[in-house]
Amino acid sequence: MKTKDIAEFLSAELVGDPGIEIVGVASLDGAEPGELSFSSGPADFVTNASAVIVPNSFDSSVHVTLIKAANPKLAFTRISSLLHPYKSLKGWSETADVAAKANVAASFIGTNVSIGDGAQITEGCELHAGVRIGLNVSIGKGTIIYPNCVIYDGAKIGSNCVIHAGTVIGSDGFGYVKDDKGEHLQFPQIGSVVIEDNVEIGANCCIDRGSLGETRIGGGTKIDNLVHIAHNVQIGKRVLIAGQSGIAGSSVIEDDVVIAGQVGISDHVTIKAGAIIGAKSAVFPNKIVRSGFWSGIPVQRIEEYTKQTVLVRNLKKLQDDVAELKRSIKE
Amino acid sequence: MKTKDIAEFLSAELVGDPGIEIVGVASLDGAEPGELSFSSGPADFVTNASAVIVPNSFDSSVHVTLIKAANPKLAFTRISSLLHPYKSLKGWSETADVAAKANVAASFIGTNVSIGDGAQITEGCELHAGVRIGLNVSIGKGTIIYPNCVIYDGAKIGSNCVIHAGTVIGSDGFGYVKDDKGEHLQFPQIGSVVIEDNVEIGANCCIDRGSLGETRIGGGTKIDNLVHIAHNVQIGKRVLIAGQSGIAGSSVIEDDVVIAGQVGISDHVTIKAGAIIGAKSAVFPNKIVRSGFWSGIPVQRIEEYTKQTVLVRNLKKLQDDVAELKRSIKE
Amino acid sequence: MKTKDIAEFLSAELVGDPGIEIVGVASLDGAEPGELSFSSGPADFVTNASAVIVPNSFDSSVHVTLIKAANPKLAFTRISSLLHPYKSLKGWSETADVAAKANVAASFIGTNVSIGDGAQITEGCELHAGVRIGLNVSIGKGTIIYPNCVIYDGAKIGSNCVIHAGTVIGSDGFGYVKDDKGEHLQFPQIGSVVIEDNVEIGANCCIDRGSLGETRIGGGTKIDNLVHIAHNVQIGKRVLIAGQSGIAGSSVIEDDVVIAGQVGISDHVTIKAGAIIGAKSAVFPNKIVRSGFWSGIPVQRIEEYTKQTVLVRNLKKLQDDVAELKRSIKE
Repeated sequence: MKTKDIAEFLSAELVGDPGIEIVGVASLDGAEPGELSFSSGPADFVTNASAVIVPNSFDSSVHVTLIKAANPKLAFTRISSLLHPYKSLKGWSETADVAAKANVAASFIGTNVSIGDGAQITEGCELHAGVRIGLNVSIGKGTIIYPNCVIYDGAKIGSNCVIHAGTVIGSDGFGYVKDDKGEHLQFPQIGSVVIEDNVEIGANCCIDRGSLGETRIGGGTKIDNLVHIAHNVQIGKRVLIAGQSGIAGSSVIEDDVVIAGQVGISDHVTIKAGAIIGAKSAVFPNKIVRSGFWSGIPVQRIEEYTKQTVLVRNLKKLQDDVAELKRSIKE
Repeated sequence: MKTKDIAEFLSAELVGDPGIEIVGVASLDGAEPGELSFSSGPADFVTNASAVIVPNSFDSSVHVTLIKAANPKLAFTRISSLLHPYKSLKGWSETADVAAKANVAASFIGTNVSIGDGAQITEGCELHAGVRIGLNVSIGKGTIIYPNCVIYDGAKIGSNCVIHAGTVIGSDGFGYVKDDKGEHLQFPQIGSVVIEDNVEIGANCCIDRGSLGETRIGGGTKIDNLVHIAHNVQIGKRVLIAGQSGIAGSSVIEDDVVIAGQVGISDHVTIKAGAIIGAKSAVFPNKIVRSGFWSGIPVQRIEEYTKQTVLVRNLKKLQDDVAELKRSIKE
Repeated sequence: MKTKDIAEFLSAELVGDPGIEIVGVASLDGAEPGELSFSSGPADFVTNASAVIVPNSFDSSVHVTLIKAANPKLAFTRISSLLHPYKSLKGWSETADVAAKANVAASFIGTNVSIGDGAQITEGCELHAGVRIGLNVSIGKGTIIYPNCVIYDGAKIGSNCVIHAGTVIGSDGFGYVKDDKGEHLQFPQIGSVVIEDNVEIGANCCIDRGSLGETRIGGGTKIDNLVHIAHNVQIGKRVLIAGQSGIAGSSVIEDDVVIAGQVGISDHVTIKAGAIIGAKSAVFPNKIVRSGFWSGIPVQRIEEYTKQTVLVRNLKKLQDDVAELKRSIKE
């Protein structure tokens, strides 16, 4: 793509050479000639990139070709997917074990994939090496499942999803009832799991089936690595969940929530639409967390959390003050 | 099963129609006609279930057929396993790689399973697709191992265990000794791992072998997803460990302990029988935690933890009081 | 090996019988005759070991043959690797799927391994059953990759590394940009991941590729199970990272840092060389953590953290003091 094609695609103003051939994208630091970068920050950057996407407000007197955008990072992201498109895989491996009664229209089935009876795998899907698809699983158009993932019986996965390696979807939830001898009997874990369209899930995650009802991940939600989603959790649309966070049974995460890394959400919690939960926080059972930014164990509104952190940091001073007061009174 | 058969199986009182054919279980909300549900709560529920298991104390003047039990959830769990039995798998895949010197009586060996020399796999076992069994592994009667689990050489797994997909048992513990150049040499990780009978382990867990001695998980213990059990940990019987918790080297968890989600237990800790450790808590090295309910980082008895949380929440008030006292004294 | 050979190998003083045949190592408690153990502690141990490595200062009047070393645990570790050498595997499984254009000199390729075009697998490597190697992956001499690991396209892994089962290297980082409709577009995740020599990684870990640049793990670094390393993280040499810790995007961990279990390091953090981060701690975004021992959420120097913990534990006393002062003033 030439710089003018990029500017045109982005409906952006071009300042500089319209005819530079751009072969790829890179960071400002790492770029080489022929590459496109972006900057949202100050104008005094140094780069070997041949063109840089910058804010509209940017000073144009820079040595490099500029493409001006309202949101440079977004513009860069959009053009990147054109310059570095995902390379679709094609073909079915002879080593795959596809059940006779599976209905498979996948464009790629890798080495040693196994697919159970009753599975519905739609066109454009890629099932990479070692993926295990259980009975009656359905997978929508264009979904990519990376190597060694395991999808249990009956799971429903939407279109245009991406599931990274080693992730397990539909295993039993963690529910037990103590019997008269103190042994733990498994509460029925016979529900379903539904992943809607455009969901992306990182590597080595675990998403349990519902115990009786269903576990659901809403459309456009993105999940990082090593995340645990328990039975019957309901996650809305466009939710972000960062690495190593966990959500316990039956909790509800509404649309557009952001959950940072290593957060713990206990069972039967509701996180209202648009709330942001800071890293390493915990929400204890049955809480309702409203919109806004929350942090701490247990979570407080960020302003409260920050105040409290300062108060605790100043405890020595407070203790000294009290000691001083005691002395004064004694005298 | 008819409602009268269910009541009989549970030795429970039936109030209503003894002849309804029950085809499955469901939640109160989700049930359809022909399904059985349960309620431990108030009597004013609305449901389409054809029968509901309720407490003995329950008011019988409800529109639906009732089955009365001392513990409705337990009764429901027991009957569910009859109405929705696990569907055992049969047969050996031709794609499995079973070593010549393995002694295998499994009832099911899935696609691409591999089994090493010296392995002892007892009757009734199911090894699902892609499971890797090392040398000299022994697995007791009726144990089910879900796809893509990895069992390292020499691990011993008991009878009637369930191990969910992607779990790794018997990998090296994390033990290093610094040499004179500051490099980390691996301390020998040549011990064993023993999983006793009736243990259930979630997906993508890691249970390390002992460094010199053994790592042991006691009978009837249940472990959720993404749990980390380090080398030489000794876990008693009927312990519950929720998602993303971790137990560091050589710690001892006695019988009937409950560990909630995202708990961290440091090394050389002892958790005494019957203790409950609240979610997101931490127990630091060499501690002994007695029976009772504990929470916090580091853990305190729940009463202390709750008091302290309140005290911290009231710090602003305390600071204001001290400021007020200062003013009074000055005057 | 005879006891005199062991003493000679360690350049250590032997006190007792030089001719005992030692067949293996064990703990003091677990040892049987013919085994070697070690003790760094008090002299009054009881053991069935035939020889024990002890500190130089140790009283020699013990019933068992002694081998004296400046650092008994290090000496024991060194001799253990001779007495219990890793048993290298040889041969290529016929079930492996090795791409025509891969350059493979591995000494072992297990059942159902798949290797993509352009891969460079050096001599002495072992790829255990079910390992998935993407396109253009390079792996150095003598590296061992345990079953069902997934190495994405283009990852570079050094020599003498050990990667335990189920670990995923090179999956996409977690980076999204919100578009005008509130949908999350994936920021390009097209960078690389480099694992230097002598790195050991536990089971079910996730190490993401760089978004634009690279993710790098320095030589001699050791990583425990279920650890999450995000895109563009730079980890130095000889770093230790314990179980279930996570490091968010673009953070820098310098040489010889020690990170205990369940630690969270946010994005764009720098942990300076030699710092130690205590278990369950959190470092929030953009912080620089200097050398020394740190703990807490967020981290403080250990002395501050300890003081503060005591101050908080004494809050009730402080509150009572203030109440008492109020009464005194009133009177």
